[in-house]
Amino acid sequence: MKFWENKESRVYLDWAAATPLLPEAKAAMEPFLDGNWGNPNAIHKEGQSARLAVETARSNIARALQVRPEFVTFTGGGTEGNNLAIFGIIESLRSEGKAYTDMQVLTTPIEHPSIARAMEKLATFGVSVEYVAVDSEGVVVVSDLQQKLSSKTVLCSLAYANSEIGVVQPLHRIKKLLQQAEQQFGTTIFFHVDGAQAPLWLSCQFETVGADVLVLDAAKCCGPKGVGVAICSRRVSLRPVLLGGGQEQGIRSGTENVLGIVGAGVAFAAAQANWRARAEHARAVRDKGIALLLETISGSVRNGPVGEQRLANNINISIQGIDTEYAAVWLDAKGFAVSTKSACAGAGGGESLVVKAISADAARARSTLRLTLGPDTTIADIERFSKALQTHVTQMRNLTQ
Amino acid sequence: MKFWENKESRVYLDWAAATPLLPEAKAAMEPFLDGNWGNPNAIHKEGQSARLAVETARSNIARALQVRPEFVTFTGGGTEGNNLAIFGIIESLRSEGKAYTDMQVLTTPIEHPSIARAMEKLATFGVSVEYVAVDSEGVVVVSDLQQKLSSKTVLCSLAYANSEIGVVQPLHRIKKLLQQAEQQFGTTIFFHVDGAQAPLWLSCQFETVGADVLVLDAAKCCGPKGVGVAICSRRVSLRPVLLGGGQEQGIRSGTENVLGIVGAGVAFAAAQANWRARAEHARAVRDKGIALLLETISGSVRNGPVGEQRLANNINISIQGIDTEYAAVWLDAKGFAVSTKSACAGAGGGESLVVKAISADAARARSTLRLTLGPDTTIADIERFSKALQTHVTQMRNLTQ
Repeated sequence: MKFWENKESRVYLDWAAATPLLPEAKAAMEPFLDGNWGNPNAIHKEGQSARLAVETARSNIARALQVRPEFVTFTGGGTEGNNLAIFGIIESLRSEGKAYTDMQVLTTPIEHPSIARAMEKLATFGVSVEYVAVDSEGVVVVSDLQQKLSSKTVLCSLAYANSEIGVVQPLHRIKKLLQQAEQQFGTTIFFHVDGAQAPLWLSCQFETVGADVLVLDAAKCCGPKGVGVAICSRRVSLRPVLLGGGQEQGIRSGTENVLGIVGAGVAFAAAQANWRARAEHARAVRDKGIALLLETISGSVRNGPVGEQRLANNINISIQGIDTEYAAVWLDAKGFAVSTKSACAGAGGGESLVVKAISADAARARSTLRLTLGPDTTIADIERFSKALQTHVTQMRNLTQ
Repeated sequence: MKFWENKESRVYLDWAAATPLLPEAKAAMEPFLDGNWGNPNAIHKEGQSARLAVETARSNIARALQVRPEFVTFTGGGTEGNNLAIFGIIESLRSEGKAYTDMQVLTTPIEHPSIARAMEKLATFGVSVEYVAVDSEGVVVVSDLQQKLSSKTVLCSLAYANSEIGVVQPLHRIKKLLQQAEQQFGTTIFFHVDGAQAPLWLSCQFETVGADVLVLDAAKCCGPKGVGVAICSRRVSLRPVLLGGGQEQGIRSGTENVLGIVGAGVAFAAAQANWRARAEHARAVRDKGIALLLETISGSVRNGPVGEQRLANNINISIQGIDTEYAAVWLDAKGFAVSTKSACAGAGGGESLVVKAISADAARARSTLRLTLGPDTTIADIERFSKALQTHVTQMRNLTQ
């Protein structure tokens, strides 16, 4: 599968921020630019044609993730999905009569802003939000999770794979602890997994993930922007964040983005169809790349774990004394697209809160460089990148000596 | 401007529910299906190219509506926009220390579900939600509005033009009353206008509308689905509904739907470029159409007003004793796409809450038929439609006699 025709010999290494639209997704979307523009909630032919497209996409995604179609809810993307999961679960419990102050929610200090900001909001309601420790590579410290679980715990929210340092969390061990706590306390603890970075590189089969709500974003796996899904387990019922006409079984009102949904249907299915081979290939490039960078860039350290615990396409280093925001701009001019942290964590400088959290080292958090590879990225790309980065680092160090 | 190449001689009369994508919007969107897929929050070339597209669309919309670009916030559509306006204003006041129970909000009983459901939610918070009376044609009774305005009023939310019966509200008179109340009570009363049905047929120049928040939906004016704007006045500050990376000046987090935004930019500008001529043409077809239907369909009555008080493209009648949901299905098979009410008010039967509110007549509310015309709809289309409807009504009446 060719993802992107590289017309300018650019080396694009920011797949965690945005991915090219899959040609097959584009092809599926084309008819919806041309004539198939009905409202899927209308009963006439134009409406029903759009409805069929939405339900076909839903079925395709359900098959790819091995769930029933009725558990697939279309959203406006990963941020909306994470908000829906968190507020949807908490407000559902609230509507059953549970007080905010009787709820404890567990998360980690390295979550995406769409989880982190939602958690801060929950805290203003009186919900007890507790941050489970992560180790120096970002992995959830399961003993700390075990300690923090209580009879008041109602929700655990975290990312499958971190968008900055690529740490893949041990979902099975976490799930097991949640289940043990449920048995011990006779409670229900919902498990919300932000899978935005996962579909191209990890299994998102719903049973494998073990979540009550799995949130995915089409734009992160070669689908269109502005569309995602929230997959719900049988036992979860979400209160809507967006209120209105009651579309998507009342969970998410608003006329369905048919064009985007059709593209998302193709993208999620294609991403999951051969994630394992794709990941294997990327992992080899990644590991050679990390080794090369640590070897050739003096004063560089790796952020995040190695091996299977690391997302197959993620490289993240800090470079001592280097302003990496400027480095990213310089590298861009040389033909390399990279970033310093999550695009959602804000352009224009500032430290990586993720690297700060795992290292407690502000200088290291200010000098991060993230490379997120695509399925077609080669070790030759990384070698070219490494040479350019070396040149830049040497120039900068000469200037400041 | 040719909106839609009608390949099957279908007569599509459901423009309030969905509109064809403008060819110019499609053309502008094409490059974003092919290569321009960067994340607008990334600092590299791919990101900045997407950023430029988003800001160009914002500028074009700002120019069309005659506001400064920084007052244009992109949303996921009309439903999200109305939720953002209502909760955004109320939560902003709440964050300034005002108690929910000290807030009164005014709306009408004929609003779109995205306003009606949000109001019901506000009521559960303790906000006093009051419904200003509308007359038998759906027009806001301004004397009732005047009576209900109080020192506690903080927000007035209503539609510019009703999606079912097409009543265009007297925004200027309403705004004047709000301003008088502000003076009298020394308070600020925000004015939220749901303009979803307006751009093709009415001026949406921001000063003309007089709103503090004007909500528009691209899909209702020949743009793509899943994208809209909320235009804010200088004095309003919205708290976000979707929390995360702080995109759109912190008002609406989530990676921007670049493809949709680009299409929306073209569609809003085109809609407003010549709304007056378009409306004049449609109004003539509409008036002949209403007269024809009332004349030829026995037992039919008009719902909503006439003349300038009625949206140029809206026809709505009730037909005594006819199951219009079934009529819509029958007519669909004969080549006519119509609806009974708002697509967001739910398919599959039930009465029109709007017609119920203006008529207090459940039978009339169960037998509504809505025709919403396009710029290319002709009187010949309506004549053909009228003949088909006559046949159906006669058949039905013969069956039940």
